[in-house]
Amino acid sequence: MKQVLVNVAKASNVAKIIVIWNNPETNPPGDGHWPEVSVPVQVIHSKYNRLSNRFYPYDEIETDCVLSIDDDITMVTPAELDFGYRVWVENADRLVGFPPRYHSVNNFELKYVSEWISNISMVLTGVSFYHKYYHFLFTSALPDGIKDWIDGHMNCEDIAMNFLIANSTGKAPIKVLARKKFKSSATGLSSDMSSHLVARDICLRHFNEAFGQTILHSVEFRADPVLFKEQDLIDDMNLYYSDGAL
Amino acid sequence: MKQVLVNVAKASNVAKIIVIWNNPETNPPGDGHWPEVSVPVQVIHSKYNRLSNRFYPYDEIETDCVLSIDDDITMVTPAELDFGYRVWVENADRLVGFPPRYHSVNNFELKYVSEWISNISMVLTGVSFYHKYYHFLFTSALPDGIKDWIDGHMNCEDIAMNFLIANSTGKAPIKVLARKKFKSSATGLSSDMSSHLVARDICLRHFNEAFGQTILHSVEFRADPVLFKEQDLIDDMNLYYSDGAL
Repeated sequence: MKQVLVNVAKASNVAKIIVIWNNPETNPPGDGHWPEVSVPVQVIHSKYNRLSNRFYPYDEIETDCVLSIDDDITMVTPAELDFGYRVWVENADRLVGFPPRYHSVNNFELKYVSEWISNISMVLTGVSFYHKYYHFLFTSALPDGIKDWIDGHMNCEDIAMNFLIANSTGKAPIKVLARKKFKSSATGLSSDMSSHLVARDICLRHFNEAFGQTILHSVEFRADPVLFKEQDLIDDMNLYYSDGAL
Repeated sequence: MKQVLVNVAKASNVAKIIVIWNNPETNPPGDGHWPEVSVPVQVIHSKYNRLSNRFYPYDEIETDCVLSIDDDITMVTPAELDFGYRVWVENADRLVGFPPRYHSVNNFELKYVSEWISNISMVLTGVSFYHKYYHFLFTSALPDGIKDWIDGHMNCEDIAMNFLIANSTGKAPIKVLARKKFKSSATGLSSDMSSHLVARDICLRHFNEAFGQTILHSVEFRADPVLFKEQDLIDDMNLYYSDGAL
């Protein structure tokens, strides 16, 4: 988690970092035990370990834009976060994220798709940008039972957020940048992974029923830096790929 | 021009092709002299050779979306046009195009920038998608004198369209796909090209004054197919790059 803090603090336009400490039994580290970063860090110690805490409209959130990021997401560089933020600024009603997902419909049955295909209809919220307004909607305007489902199953808060924003806007999320960095989680085929996918299928169908219709919206484009992959023609290209991994 | 017709007709979702024949003295070819394509072709013979004819709200335009394309744009494939259209559908208030441009501001002086940089604030309308509503705005709601300027100079109708849409929406245009195909026109350095750029600078400043403020909006992203440049990981990538040129 410390690496995530250091990474996020290096991005531009960060007002503060809010840590949601979801372990009620263990106190978060004290003031001296956090990495020294250039922005204020506030820690919120949750009373209950609820997955939905992630999307609670905390008073501490003061900016319009929220970057929601898991404590193990260290593969996204500060420059890539900057790029994601700039795309969000231009699409402030949408969910902007990195690894995408899709929902397929076969014989009226929804399926959660994590393979590499040309369509996307969701982005994972493990590293995503959205307007803080959606914290209010998530907490007070989800269809009955969805929040309890999420907290009970400890899963699918991200799928619910995708449904919620699609339902509010009628628009698809926006995926930024290429996907290679996330491939381990995207292409895993272990039995553990299969059971994960089955659970996601179930969430998808349950939420779809709760919202009353298939509201996820599919698109076929992602957002790249204007000069992405034109490196052979000019030198000044690596702005968003400074680590050479993409 | 015939090649353009054949190309455009091969794209999906084309309702009809409207040819604006801007030579008042010469009749357009008769019915038998157009390439046989799968969509209706209507020819409008202009009374006057005005550049602004391009953006007139012809009754013949029946769809919401207009693909405006010059008669020599043969380097964009039908699949790439399909992709551009899909991006437009998701951004129907914006101008969606291929080669981008930028306006820089130095000491309060605007400059037209066609170099390869990370920002874009315009796209050329020589091959672009937009809502037909902008034909009405262009014809009836441009600031005084701009349409005459365009017809008098036979230049800069595209810059004016970028101003008009930026002024209506407060948003930037969207550039789709990489830029390599257009490099000859983008990097030309002949004296002819320099005088072209000087003329464009003058247009930019004139329109800026006419609109009363700098309304062009700059962004740092373009739209790519979801799987663009991930070819090394899966095979099914060449959907939008079937000719291998990009």
